[in-house]
Amino acid sequence: MIIVKVGGGRKINLKGVVQDLAALAEPFIIVHGANAVRDDLAAKLGHPTKTVTSVSGYASVLSDENAIDVIMMAYAGLQNKRLVELCQQHGINAVGLSGIDGKAVQGARNKGIRVRQNEKTIMMRDHSGKPRGVNKALITLLLDNGYVPVLCIPIIDENNTAINSENDDIVAVLQEELHAETVIQLIEAPGFLNDANDQTSVVARISKLELESREAQVEGRMKRKVHALAKLAATGVQRILISDGRVEHPIQDALNGKGTTIQ
Amino acid sequence: MIIVKVGGGRKINLKGVVQDLAALAEPFIIVHGANAVRDDLAAKLGHPTKTVTSVSGYASVLSDENAIDVIMMAYAGLQNKRLVELCQQHGINAVGLSGIDGKAVQGARNKGIRVRQNEKTIMMRDHSGKPRGVNKALITLLLDNGYVPVLCIPIIDENNTAINSENDDIVAVLQEELHAETVIQLIEAPGFLNDANDQTSVVARISKLELESREAQVEGRMKRKVHALAKLAATGVQRILISDGRVEHPIQDALNGKGTTIQ
Repeated sequence: MIIVKVGGGRKINLKGVVQDLAALAEPFIIVHGANAVRDDLAAKLGHPTKTVTSVSGYASVLSDENAIDVIMMAYAGLQNKRLVELCQQHGINAVGLSGIDGKAVQGARNKGIRVRQNEKTIMMRDHSGKPRGVNKALITLLLDNGYVPVLCIPIIDENNTAINSENDDIVAVLQEELHAETVIQLIEAPGFLNDANDQTSVVARISKLELESREAQVEGRMKRKVHALAKLAATGVQRILISDGRVEHPIQDALNGKGTTIQ
Repeated sequence: MIIVKVGGGRKINLKGVVQDLAALAEPFIIVHGANAVRDDLAAKLGHPTKTVTSVSGYASVLSDENAIDVIMMAYAGLQNKRLVELCQQHGINAVGLSGIDGKAVQGARNKGIRVRQNEKTIMMRDHSGKPRGVNKALITLLLDNGYVPVLCIPIIDENNTAINSENDDIVAVLQEELHAETVIQLIEAPGFLNDANDQTSVVARISKLELESREAQVEGRMKRKVHALAKLAATGVQRILISDGRVEHPIQDALNGKGTTIQ
């Protein structure tokens, strides 16, 4: 089993991803982003995506009610359905699910983000949270009957309210329950970069142990991503492949070790 | 088994619908519209919904690529996910599906609409079509495992492309395969009206035979609706209840015969 996380950047070659997946012998599930579609839509609707940085240095999107509406439209609506359509066109019998459908991904709402504002630390509470579990019965029911789940945010919180969540965390929780051998993460870079500004600085291999020390090196949203990678590695996955989603054959290249392999 | 068709008008009391459904003993599935959300979104995005009337007098939405994007956002995105969320909050384990998910609703793309334009008859081809069948295996798989399917457009055509379709036709095709005893249609009116401008002119009962003669009485989009009702009645459904979706207890009232009963 492979969990494929497809980034939501504008340059991801979704058609190439789906073509490669259609040729796979192994079962797989897809978790996708849609941040480019989301940001475009939010701007057009007059609710531009707001980002805050917590006092501990993690950057997050601030998700008010409008932001959840936009997520439903951009992720569960446009991006999910266009991806499902593409899958169907390549013989993959995809079923799109947000985390609230059949409580596919269940989480706990964040208590609030501690943010510095005008020289004060305040708590900002939004509709976001951490995934805590998945509906494994539903996901395996679909897989066992020949369907490929295509998952996205929002997820559902303890009060059955839709919340935003990080796909990296969702993948980690999925992996804990599904025990996939391989997690592929397709991004808009050739792999994990030693220097974010140098596309040739791809790290070919990182040991699970090394991930923690890397966490100290990076900043902003990348800090959260490396933290999530360390958590994912700790679930016992055999390998994590971070690879370029913009190329002709994103999945083939990932499986051939062209990006970064974490083992 | 009950098929509940929930209109996409602004005044439909979705919370009331879901509260009533949560109290039902019978299994049910939901098919919903989202035309108010769609029209708002389309206008905000600068792609206002286009309607044309065919030479034979049927009014239809003209669905170009942009319109399908908007349908994915409004129907499969915002309206479907907010409805699924509401269901989850009332203990209904809903799973939202567009017709392209698992090919839940399969159709054939229209060859084109014959339209009069500048004194000429031209063919306009768009991304719309008629439903021809449903994935009964997927729908019963979900129902048998305790999930309530919440269905909406787009549906999938013979080339695995997303197309727009009329919910009335989708309900008829669903009914042919699922053999529900009851179909409830919740609209923004107290029932089937003798006179569209007179809210007190509700017809309490219509026989299946009478439907055809009624088709000649009405115009525009209503013509299509009555035609679909006649087709639905012909599937052998025991009763169709057309009832007010704006009231406190839309489902209870429908089942108590407060709207129009077609038998």
